[in-house]
Amino acid sequence: MRKLSILKVGGAIVENPASLGSFLDSFHEVEGPKILVHGGGRSASELCGRLGIPVKMVDGRRITDKATLEVAIMTYGGLVNRNIVAALQHRGENALGLSGADLACIKAVKRASAQIDYGYVGDVREVNADAICRLLESGVTPVFAPLSFDGTTLLNTNADSIAAELAAALADRYEVSLRYCFEKEGVLDKDGVLIRSITPDSYLALKSSAAVSGGMIPKIDNAFASLGRGVREVFIGKTLVQADASSPRTDGR
Amino acid sequence: MRKLSILKVGGAIVENPASLGSFLDSFHEVEGPKILVHGGGRSASELCGRLGIPVKMVDGRRITDKATLEVAIMTYGGLVNRNIVAALQHRGENALGLSGADLACIKAVKRASAQIDYGYVGDVREVNADAICRLLESGVTPVFAPLSFDGTTLLNTNADSIAAELAAALADRYEVSLRYCFEKEGVLDKDGVLIRSITPDSYLALKSSAAVSGGMIPKIDNAFASLGRGVREVFIGKTLVQADASSPRTDGR
Repeated sequence: MRKLSILKVGGAIVENPASLGSFLDSFHEVEGPKILVHGGGRSASELCGRLGIPVKMVDGRRITDKATLEVAIMTYGGLVNRNIVAALQHRGENALGLSGADLACIKAVKRASAQIDYGYVGDVREVNADAICRLLESGVTPVFAPLSFDGTTLLNTNADSIAAELAAALADRYEVSLRYCFEKEGVLDKDGVLIRSITPDSYLALKSSAAVSGGMIPKIDNAFASLGRGVREVFIGKTLVQADASSPRTDGR
Repeated sequence: MRKLSILKVGGAIVENPASLGSFLDSFHEVEGPKILVHGGGRSASELCGRLGIPVKMVDGRRITDKATLEVAIMTYGGLVNRNIVAALQHRGENALGLSGADLACIKAVKRASAQIDYGYVGDVREVNADAICRLLESGVTPVFAPLSFDGTTLLNTNADSIAAELAAALADRYEVSLRYCFEKEGVLDKDGVLIRSITPDSYLALKSSAAVSGGMIPKIDNAFASLGRGVREVFIGKTLVQADASSPRTDGR
């Protein structure tokens, strides 16, 4: 089976021109078909601030009312996505920016309100793997903004989840490597030492000793869920070159 | 040769949800391959106002400094484009939103500053007809934001010009009908009566009698230039159904 690299890059890298530039240089070096998924939450918070729209976060998730959704579409789907596409084309990468509505790539449902009404927030239900494969096979590099589509409206959606859903949906057509790239070296233990590999057993031990906590838990949960759905390997860290032995790895083997 | 409809829809229609909805209903009814190009200047001006960015226009053209370019990318490339794509997908149209950088579709050069420095404003130099044809032939409906690409950065570009350049670039592969859709009935004479057809000769007479003036002149000039470059017919008006006998027409025949 052919290899496919799916890279998710976080807001702190994306929103600093120097770190974004060096990330995109490395991304362009990745061989074979590839997909980029980006965040951009800081851009959204900054624009909310300039427009006087209150930013409401619960457990790291953005409460998305109508005005905040518009900001998310303008920043994630507009400024961040379009500028990344331009920067990749500048490097000779045939990039195409996508929201979940384009080609109906990422169908979602609006999250049902239980205790917390998250507003216009989507949970992914279906990935249009045919459309994405057609792009990949014609040499196009899709660049996804963290916006899904419920058939009527765009919905704000966690970029880690979009990357995981894309990886799982494409795992029966490609040997998928999923990489979560962010500003830290990787998953660190409570002494700040990089953990090089995590298995389901070692993960349980790390969680019970509180060595891993906070926002890292959903990220690693996502990683194991992807492995359970056929994704070949998941990396969490700063580097993105596949052969780099210093990349920490999360796998089920 | 197969027919292709290229429709440009102006800001006043786009920025009113009711008029946009009825326009998109009609657009969805247009048979065969088609392309939509949209404006969005009012959204940009409104966002500039909310952000305290001064709006500078010279002869109906927007002076685009760095901050204004970002607003253009957020509104044209973000809010307006992504919402139109979502609304078309909702109608069952397989839409894909594009800036000039996506698939390197629309290459431009930054307008050289003579008397007036327009800033980040692009003049189209090359359309990637191969990429656009591939989309059309696979049943995709491209939706273009008025943003071109100079190889490094996105540039603010007049939507009428983008529509005209797309039409000319595709005229040797399709029988292209180009339609400028806006809120008025069409080209009106000085008594406000709709002009049903304009030829090069009648256009000269209309201009010399000042029956046609202002922003309509570049639009009609664009129309005749397109006809000179192989486009089959150009319509300017409110309606967009090809067979509608009430559509005013600008053609060279």
